[in-house]
Amino acid sequence: MEIVVYLAGQIHDDWREQVEQGAREKNLPLSFVGPQTNHDRSDNIGEEILGKQPSSYYKDDAASDINNFRTQVLMQKSDIVIALFGEQYKQWNTAMDVSTAISLNKPTIIVRPASLIHPLKELSNKANVTVETIEQALDVVSYIYE
Amino acid sequence: MEIVVYLAGQIHDDWREQVEQGAREKNLPLSFVGPQTNHDRSDNIGEEILGKQPSSYYKDDAASDINNFRTQVLMQKSDIVIALFGEQYKQWNTAMDVSTAISLNKPTIIVRPASLIHPLKELSNKANVTVETIEQALDVVSYIYE
Amino acid sequence: MEIVVYLAGQIHDDWREQVEQGAREKNLPLSFVGPQTNHDRSDNIGEEILGKQPSSYYKDDAASDINNFRTQVLMQKSDIVIALFGEQYKQWNTAMDVSTAISLNKPTIIVRPASLIHPLKELSNKANVTVETIEQALDVVSYIYE
Amino acid sequence: MEIVVYLAGQIHDDWREQVEQGAREKNLPLSFVGPQTNHDRSDNIGEEILGKQPSSYYKDDAASDINNFRTQVLMQKSDIVIALFGEQYKQWNTAMDVSTAISLNKPTIIVRPASLIHPLKELSNKANVTVETIEQALDVVSYIYE
Amino acid sequence: MEIVVYLAGQIHDDWREQVEQGAREKNLPLSFVGPQTNHDRSDNIGEEILGKQPSSYYKDDAASDINNFRTQVLMQKSDIVIALFGEQYKQWNTAMDVSTAISLNKPTIIVRPASLIHPLKELSNKANVTVETIEQALDVVSYIYE
Amino acid sequence: MEIVVYLAGQIHDDWREQVEQGAREKNLPLSFVGPQTNHDRSDNIGEEILGKQPSSYYKDDAASDINNFRTQVLMQKSDIVIALFGEQYKQWNTAMDVSTAISLNKPTIIVRPASLIHPLKELSNKANVTVETIEQALDVVSYIYE
Amino acid sequence: MEIVVYLAGQIHDDWREQVEQGAREKNLPLSFVGPQTNHDRSDNIGEEILGKQPSSYYKDDAASDINNFRTQVLMQKSDIVIALFGEQYKQWNTAMDVSTAISLNKPTIIVRPASLIHPLKELSNKANVTVETIEQALDVVSYIYE
Amino acid sequence: MEIVVYLAGQIHDDWREQVEQGAREKNLPLSFVGPQTNHDRSDNIGEEILGKQPSSYYKDDAASDINNFRTQVLMQKSDIVIALFGEQYKQWNTAMDVSTAISLNKPTIIVRPASLIHPLKELSNKANVTVETIEQALDVVSYIYE
Repeated sequence: MEIVVYLAGQIHDDWREQVEQGAREKNLPLSFVGPQTNHDRSDNIGEEILGKQPSSYYKDDAASDINNFRTQVLMQKSDIVIALFGEQYKQWNTAMDVSTAISLNKPTIIVRPASLIHPLKELSNKANVTVETIEQALDVVSYIYE
Repeated sequence: MEIVVYLAGQIHDDWREQVEQGAREKNLPLSFVGPQTNHDRSDNIGEEILGKQPSSYYKDDAASDINNFRTQVLMQKSDIVIALFGEQYKQWNTAMDVSTAISLNKPTIIVRPASLIHPLKELSNKANVTVETIEQALDVVSYIYE
Repeated sequence: MEIVVYLAGQIHDDWREQVEQGAREKNLPLSFVGPQTNHDRSDNIGEEILGKQPSSYYKDDAASDINNFRTQVLMQKSDIVIALFGEQYKQWNTAMDVSTAISLNKPTIIVRPASLIHPLKELSNKANVTVETIEQALDVVSYIYE
Repeated sequence: MEIVVYLAGQIHDDWREQVEQGAREKNLPLSFVGPQTNHDRSDNIGEEILGKQPSSYYKDDAASDINNFRTQVLMQKSDIVIALFGEQYKQWNTAMDVSTAISLNKPTIIVRPASLIHPLKELSNKANVTVETIEQALDVVSYIYE
Repeated sequence: MEIVVYLAGQIHDDWREQVEQGAREKNLPLSFVGPQTNHDRSDNIGEEILGKQPSSYYKDDAASDINNFRTQVLMQKSDIVIALFGEQYKQWNTAMDVSTAISLNKPTIIVRPASLIHPLKELSNKANVTVETIEQALDVVSYIYE
Repeated sequence: MEIVVYLAGQIHDDWREQVEQGAREKNLPLSFVGPQTNHDRSDNIGEEILGKQPSSYYKDDAASDINNFRTQVLMQKSDIVIALFGEQYKQWNTAMDVSTAISLNKPTIIVRPASLIHPLKELSNKANVTVETIEQALDVVSYIYE
Repeated sequence: MEIVVYLAGQIHDDWREQVEQGAREKNLPLSFVGPQTNHDRSDNIGEEILGKQPSSYYKDDAASDINNFRTQVLMQKSDIVIALFGEQYKQWNTAMDVSTAISLNKPTIIVRPASLIHPLKELSNKANVTVETIEQALDVVSYIYE
Repeated sequence: MEIVVYLAGQIHDDWREQVEQGAREKNLPLSFVGPQTNHDRSDNIGEEILGKQPSSYYKDDAASDINNFRTQVLMQKSDIVIALFGEQYKQWNTAMDVSTAISLNKPTIIVRPASLIHPLKELSNKANVTVETIEQALDVVSYIYE
């Protein structure tokens, strides 16, 4: 049984590759989708398609149109969502994606360091499972196939 | 990841072929569906299947039954909608298809000339993305695969 | 049984007052809501609240945010929708409101002149009832109370 | 027409009172609900009802059960959501509440300072309206009644 | 607790009055809605509002628009549905109303004579309760208030 | 594009075979599902699986459990519904299936003789298309592929 | 803000009265609904309305029709659900009511003794809050009004 | 037509293997999913992934997160649910799974011994079919393919 996983969350390190490699090592029949991980491309996509905008506000608005379009297409194609929160950055997009996934009844796993237990407590409470490492998240997904 | 695209909008020029050719050039794994583009066939389909109607009003009503049936089947099979508004014609069907798509949570792109910014502003606001050219619409779809 | 009616459609004449007066004459327990009917206010609301925008494109976008907010609040409070299409103007907002109402299962009446039968045929087909005069629309609503 | 407003967002200043006072000054028929604004009470509610928990992790989990229960009850009773993001704090609950409101089709206004335009761009894009001041948010709500 | 009851079913005898009188005798806080029970008015309503139609087929189509509009408004206002099938007539509207009510999660009671057990067996199976007399239907509703 | 068609309606003649043969002749990529067409098997299925019931009432109830289970599974797998009403029999199951299909947003075609125009007028009005012959129903489905 | 509470769970003791009295003491604006608490009436309601059934199996089936009708009406009228599990009895109805409430997005509190932690762990995990005493459940509801 | 079956219910005997073997003997194109059937693994999964918890209460809570995640993923992939209740154990998870399945419109079969008719009567009433043996459940599924 093939499962499509949306990998929400920060785009500043290689955590998605770690998830994908872990899945290969466990031979899990997973395929992965997620946001644009090239940060500059993500920020500039509005202007790159629609042309120069009057200010950074309008540049951001144009980019968010297209990033939200992408996320909506790919999350609808997904069976589960894994969302990673890191210690830096505001990551409101991650919170938004997790809440949207939960509202869509997508089974959802949050990965976050212990230092974020308190600020994420209500969000963790609504997600199915919260873990601290990528390895644990894959253990949870792997458990489906046992 | 295969994506089915419903191409809503005017049926008086070859814009759908341009979209399809653009997708082939970009090697995007898209398949396309849309309304009946033979205008006469679309207007006459009610009488061609159900027989002569008492007046043009009833002819129109019979045709719309069957055109709406077709649209509903194909839009439900689609993952995203691209809708093109041209400068001529009333194109209320296009507005209807876009609104229906948005209500069904189908990610939606509007293509319209700058001259239509004002009359389409509320509809553009509800769609995910609004662009001015077919090339831009394909850039948005292509971005999903980056 | 009190019924709330959303009056979608053109804002360039006094048709809403005719509806409201007709309802009073028939003693129907209806209350009415609808879009901002002051056209300038509707077009300028974005800048009037958010301040000067860089161009008319951005002015329109800001206005549509707030007009769509208003429509969503009021349509959700409504039990039925009456939408009037006139012979002038593109009226894509009216088509958008009708389609949204139908998707939300709001019983919907379209009022349109005979000259618009053909371009509105698919939308009429999805609405519950299409009539030509305000008087007829009120007759349909009145029928609920017989 | 009475409208119930859920005031999501930070609980560290008196912004909710400012909203309520502004509504009174404008004579808007609004009633307001929102999260527990006593921060200590909100953090301790789990232990205060369920008793001492083994560690702060479990104390947080117990509190979030009850805070989420409260939010779910009150948001379902609401017609619209106004969410304020300040410059401090992570405010993932606010992002969660906004996303949930949008998924539930609750018309939503975000209030945030210009400094947060970039990190909130995708969330702003999904909300109906984003403004910078409480006064502007009330102007948007007031527009419903014009 | 006030409950609104939609009384679906045949319009050829006074069974609705029997239900209403029974409810009064039991002091049940029920209010009742239902289809147009004047058969001629129901059949002619299309022509009476829209004018003469080209044939009985179009007359029927016009009437059904308006009858379905009425039913949709009133069923959405209802908490429960009681549907009576008699031994005569095809009563496909009754079957349609019962199925629609069940799909809308409206708790539903069917009243039918023993002679109709077999042809109604699948519909009875989907309804909450099937009884043989109006008295029994009122006993079921009355049980809510015990 | 493969389409699954649920063939609702009477089980007393070979109309389903005519539909299937017509589809083969037109080379339409359709597959067909439908109710149990062996009438005795359909009526007896409850007792054949669950054993002798106390009377025909309970026999009918047991059969309807299993027939409704079958219909629910197969209709959920279907993209469109074609329902045939004949001149004999009460066919309330057909009306039930059509209404359920419409409530589930399955595009629906009714086939009925002209003699049934009047009693089926409200149901026809809610279905997408109503035709008089199997050939016409296939023409409507075929139109999707043009 | 008035809140309607459905009190699911065992009907063998006076726990509902304790809840209602506790709410009065706290001056909470709650109203309460729930299942038939007269056990004999609940078991016999099928025969009491529909007449003698062939065996206890059919008596149970007839009663459950009417009990499920009652529960569906009252749960739809409720804003929150409080469900109490005691140490005796199988109480599958309570588990059913809790699951149904959760699926309907009704905020839900489970009350159960510590001895039932293990067998109820998955159900508790899906409910919003689980407590051990009626007093605690009322504290949770009371927290909404702080 | 391939059908995916979720096998809810007790995990203390080999009934799932009996179902699977019966399906093979009948050549039914079914595939099967279900809960973790290794009881110790199911009870310990929380600690095995997340580490030692402070007490059995927290161990149970951690396990239920992950078991509910697994169930949600697999039930969403399923077309029908077969749930077996045995005479021992409380089996509230089974009742929860059946109720959830029914709320999700998954066609559902309950298998239970005659001794459980009374305590399961309301749940049986909401399921599509209730039988006493695995053989009968397979007969019901097999009937889909006739």
